[in-house]
Amino acid sequence: MEDAVEAHQRPKLERYGDTLFAVFKTVCYVDHEELTANSEVVDTGEIMVFLGEDFVVTVRHGRHGSLGPLREGLESDPGQLAQGPSTVLHAVADHVVDDYLTVIDSVQEDMDQVETDVFAEHGERVDPGRIYQLKRELLELKRAVVPLGRPLEELASRPIRVVAPEIQAYFRDVSDHLQRAKEQIAAFDELLNSILQAHLAQVTVAQNEDMRKITAWAAIVAVPTMICGVYGMNFDHMPELRWRYGYGMVIGVISVACLVLYRAFRRGRWL
Amino acid sequence: MEDAVEAHQRPKLERYGDTLFAVFKTVCYVDHEELTANSEVVDTGEIMVFLGEDFVVTVRHGRHGSLGPLREGLESDPGQLAQGPSTVLHAVADHVVDDYLTVIDSVQEDMDQVETDVFAEHGERVDPGRIYQLKRELLELKRAVVPLGRPLEELASRPIRVVAPEIQAYFRDVSDHLQRAKEQIAAFDELLNSILQAHLAQVTVAQNEDMRKITAWAAIVAVPTMICGVYGMNFDHMPELRWRYGYGMVIGVISVACLVLYRAFRRGRWL
Amino acid sequence: MEDAVEAHQRPKLERYGDTLFAVFKTVCYVDHEELTANSEVVDTGEIMVFLGEDFVVTVRHGRHGSLGPLREGLESDPGQLAQGPSTVLHAVADHVVDDYLTVIDSVQEDMDQVETDVFAEHGERVDPGRIYQLKRELLELKRAVVPLGRPLEELASRPIRVVAPEIQAYFRDVSDHLQRAKEQIAAFDELLNSILQAHLAQVTVAQNEDMRKITAWAAIVAVPTMICGVYGMNFDHMPELRWRYGYGMVIGVISVACLVLYRAFRRGRWL
Amino acid sequence: MEDAVEAHQRPKLERYGDTLFAVFKTVCYVDHEELTANSEVVDTGEIMVFLGEDFVVTVRHGRHGSLGPLREGLESDPGQLAQGPSTVLHAVADHVVDDYLTVIDSVQEDMDQVETDVFAEHGERVDPGRIYQLKRELLELKRAVVPLGRPLEELASRPIRVVAPEIQAYFRDVSDHLQRAKEQIAAFDELLNSILQAHLAQVTVAQNEDMRKITAWAAIVAVPTMICGVYGMNFDHMPELRWRYGYGMVIGVISVACLVLYRAFRRGRWL
Amino acid sequence: MEDAVEAHQRPKLERYGDTLFAVFKTVCYVDHEELTANSEVVDTGEIMVFLGEDFVVTVRHGRHGSLGPLREGLESDPGQLAQGPSTVLHAVADHVVDDYLTVIDSVQEDMDQVETDVFAEHGERVDPGRIYQLKRELLELKRAVVPLGRPLEELASRPIRVVAPEIQAYFRDVSDHLQRAKEQIAAFDELLNSILQAHLAQVTVAQNEDMRKITAWAAIVAVPTMICGVYGMNFDHMPELRWRYGYGMVIGVISVACLVLYRAFRRGRWL
Repeated sequence: MEDAVEAHQRPKLERYGDTLFAVFKTVCYVDHEELTANSEVVDTGEIMVFLGEDFVVTVRHGRHGSLGPLREGLESDPGQLAQGPSTVLHAVADHVVDDYLTVIDSVQEDMDQVETDVFAEHGERVDPGRIYQLKRELLELKRAVVPLGRPLEELASRPIRVVAPEIQAYFRDVSDHLQRAKEQIAAFDELLNSILQAHLAQVTVAQNEDMRKITAWAAIVAVPTMICGVYGMNFDHMPELRWRYGYGMVIGVISVACLVLYRAFRRGRWL
Repeated sequence: MEDAVEAHQRPKLERYGDTLFAVFKTVCYVDHEELTANSEVVDTGEIMVFLGEDFVVTVRHGRHGSLGPLREGLESDPGQLAQGPSTVLHAVADHVVDDYLTVIDSVQEDMDQVETDVFAEHGERVDPGRIYQLKRELLELKRAVVPLGRPLEELASRPIRVVAPEIQAYFRDVSDHLQRAKEQIAAFDELLNSILQAHLAQVTVAQNEDMRKITAWAAIVAVPTMICGVYGMNFDHMPELRWRYGYGMVIGVISVACLVLYRAFRRGRWL
Repeated sequence: MEDAVEAHQRPKLERYGDTLFAVFKTVCYVDHEELTANSEVVDTGEIMVFLGEDFVVTVRHGRHGSLGPLREGLESDPGQLAQGPSTVLHAVADHVVDDYLTVIDSVQEDMDQVETDVFAEHGERVDPGRIYQLKRELLELKRAVVPLGRPLEELASRPIRVVAPEIQAYFRDVSDHLQRAKEQIAAFDELLNSILQAHLAQVTVAQNEDMRKITAWAAIVAVPTMICGVYGMNFDHMPELRWRYGYGMVIGVISVACLVLYRAFRRGRWL
Repeated sequence: MEDAVEAHQRPKLERYGDTLFAVFKTVCYVDHEELTANSEVVDTGEIMVFLGEDFVVTVRHGRHGSLGPLREGLESDPGQLAQGPSTVLHAVADHVVDDYLTVIDSVQEDMDQVETDVFAEHGERVDPGRIYQLKRELLELKRAVVPLGRPLEELASRPIRVVAPEIQAYFRDVSDHLQRAKEQIAAFDELLNSILQAHLAQVTVAQNEDMRKITAWAAIVAVPTMICGVYGMNFDHMPELRWRYGYGMVIGVISVACLVLYRAFRRGRWL
Repeated sequence: MEDAVEAHQRPKLERYGDTLFAVFKTVCYVDHEELTANSEVVDTGEIMVFLGEDFVVTVRHGRHGSLGPLREGLESDPGQLAQGPSTVLHAVADHVVDDYLTVIDSVQEDMDQVETDVFAEHGERVDPGRIYQLKRELLELKRAVVPLGRPLEELASRPIRVVAPEIQAYFRDVSDHLQRAKEQIAAFDELLNSILQAHLAQVTVAQNEDMRKITAWAAIVAVPTMICGVYGMNFDHMPELRWRYGYGMVIGVISVACLVLYRAFRRGRWL
């Protein structure tokens, strides 16, 4: 059993003989002024529950998931506790899953903020790090929520000796809530994907515009280089080279050519 | 209670002892000549309802959601009012959700307009700001509609003391209408995403075409530069430099080369 | 009522006291040799029906939707007409929705043609105008079909005084057919989106290939320009410049360099 | 009736008075060593069935769909034939639809092959013609399978005089199989789309890499050109031009500059 | 029968008279330190089962799928074996499908790892080979799992002589588990697609940034080249060429021009 208490496990439900061992990931929303590329949004902890026929032990890792209020609630309701230790397992599961839904509601606001920013006037200037950060935090949430699905379903559907039948019925409710949490997370995931895709497409368009601008300038510069090249040739017989105002005329031609190009590029919205 | 009356809350339903406190977001479609990047499409307000066993108080923020006609309708039907204050809660919810559907019908026309424009002959010239604006307005609508889902579902399914049982049944209808509004908004969202994606792809194709054109011109200009470079070399023994018509011939060669390139690029549709 | 008869209305169903007023959009497939960027594919008209307890009036706009055969069919079956004027409303709705399905079957062939062309060997040369045209024609069809959904559902589910109960049951069938038409249109829409996306991606790939080719040529041209630049320098002590065959050698070096580059680019499939 | 026997019709089911006329598209998988851009994967033929109350005629176009075994099967089971000519219609439909499923199983392997190739190490070198070919062959299959849906549904659900009621029940099974074939084809279609999209994105990335490489080389070449330009100027007072080792020094500077650039570009993975 | 024992078959279920022949693909997760472009993730083997009315033979290919524990489990439970040889078929199928689910759970962690890496700060530097490798391994898993669907469904729904009716009911459970495995694989597939798409878009953005940088540098270098070109012209009358400090001034102008451009490009985030 000592072995089982180590931290950083995936959510699961195991049976050791008549003892049930459950690992839950608790999550908690971390308040932040504004979402940045490093904002911690979701913080996770762990609660383990050992459940025998006449005992229940809970172990807690991480800052969150204080079970104090839970304990008080249970102790103040002797009728509930009379149904045996599995009441505690249900109370913990219910508490943990309710926290998921609360966290999801808070994450919704971060989603809204990012979506609004990306679809704002100059969405291509949004720091994509924020989208990635939200994606990663969502992944953390997903890793806490999704693996709990199958264990909870089993708790709700298959009779287990250490779980009182009246309690088992309650697990169906918990399982339904978890289902809703999973769906919401999947929806967030898809939404973030399409936001990211839109953002990357915006950035590509802005980059292309820059490229067009730089290349257009380079093309303008290439024209005088070419004209100068002509009069840099060393032919013996190039009458223009002997003209008194040849140099001035060439500078004039170059200036006019550049101006015309500049205007044309402006009109074509290339500059 | 005074605390509860502040503006800018998310839609919700809370119980303070025997009092029910509900926040609704009202929406209203803002008529506009033509959708631009700044058109306000959806305007929102708030209605709060305090419901006790023998009283109901409504508070209204924002220009919309005049409850006058509602009040008249209720007062003219004493049979309905006899079912107690929860009638008013239902009437408000029904009114608010009906407005959602009306607004959605109007937004449909903006969607049609944007879609038609993007898929028109020169869709790449459409101002993407319009798509973004519609997206933002849709987000505002979503923020009003979606959070109402869970409270309404609860009202429809769980018995609450201050809500008369006959009234509760009516809430199922309201909840169904809200569901339809949510689905419609989700469909709009997806449609706008695919419109935006198509538009950005169109713009990329148009930008690439510009780049190809600029680069093709630059490539044409590079050829005379190279030829001039040859005759700009300072070798003692370059017979061409001594020829009487060397200069003219080079200019001729350059002109022909450029013309040939230009024709070739035209044929390849690069220019 | 005169006011109601104006053209260009959205499909709808309204009640004025005991009179029912329905607007249907009729559609008709326009045959065309081949789908081009301007082909008209779908042509629309309007039928309005005023239905009272003992009268029915139909108004028709546009070339299509001749109700002649309908009238004959009804008149030849007195048993049916005995069920009152709502028979006519049903007959019109049934006729209009059946036309939707027929048109959709014909549009399927245009879809097939476009899809085959885009996924042909040189799909990037397909005129995207054809895809846009089909998209626009589909939008027109959508605008005729989709808004009819809610009115028809209401006709099928809520008892209305002017509609005979036996007739009402028939409307469920019409509503089902409309549902199928809506699904088919949604499927077409999605298919066109993915065709367009594939096409734009193909075009981008082809454009990139062009760019690579032009840039590779420009890079080849840059090498002689650089070498000529070296021998265009005015240093007093540049022994090569004094060599008898210096010029020839440089031209040789340049030719070899260009040839090597050309071969390398060919091998790398850049040219 | 002779008119009806012409080839190249879409699958359909029509009634001429008491005669039923059905057109089926038969498909057959064409074995090929390896999928290329021209591989024929699916070959189609046609079977037409004329069904009256006391006769049945079948007409066959194309190489496939030999009905020999079918006939033998039916003739060896007199009990089945006693149910009248509609037994034959069912046997043909069942046979044709079963072939669809068999062909789909074979196409699955082509799909697997293409998918494996595109997601292999150098997927961007895959010939996209193969993806397009598969797409086109799938389209051909789709055109055979999809239009059969509605006729089969009708056969299964609406009583028709020439079809024995016991036989009609069997058509529900055929219709289910066709439904499965349709779903599978739709799944293939979507999969091919995402494969194509991934492939085009890979190609774009590879093209961009090429462009970056070419442009980086051109940028390296531009530096000596610029330096040579400096010493190609004709100022009277340019002390370096008079230095004994000026030329050598410039060549040295140029070489070092190019080397440094080359190294930097290598480190940045641009070359 | 000897013919049937050859390796590398697709999962299937065939009847030879009264003998049932089933091919299962066993899968096994290959542990790896870290996912690389060559990591083997999923290894497959084969189990074949010949089932007659009073005998059962199993043949095993590949390292995995040791049936030892299975045999022991069956032999220790005589009650189960009394139901005849089909018990063994069920035990094998159950065992194989359970392995699928276990492998999928392990693959989930690889998915998580790849997703975390791609959405990390510098996701564009992730080796895409890893995504492709996971995709290929998933394909291998898919090829083992998906074709088993139809045979298992048939086993669960159609009575077969050699399968005891009590056993047949158990196959429904196995079929459900397989269904779950299929869904999970489909979800992984879609997730990998969107990860790959996001990654390729990231890479494109990073490439465009490089291109912009290189082109911006080339544009800066083009300016001195142009200015030098001007003073490389051979006009007789170019007063600047005679100035004592003309050369110095031009170098100064060039330096300032480059610096200004560099600053401007920096400010525009092009460098």
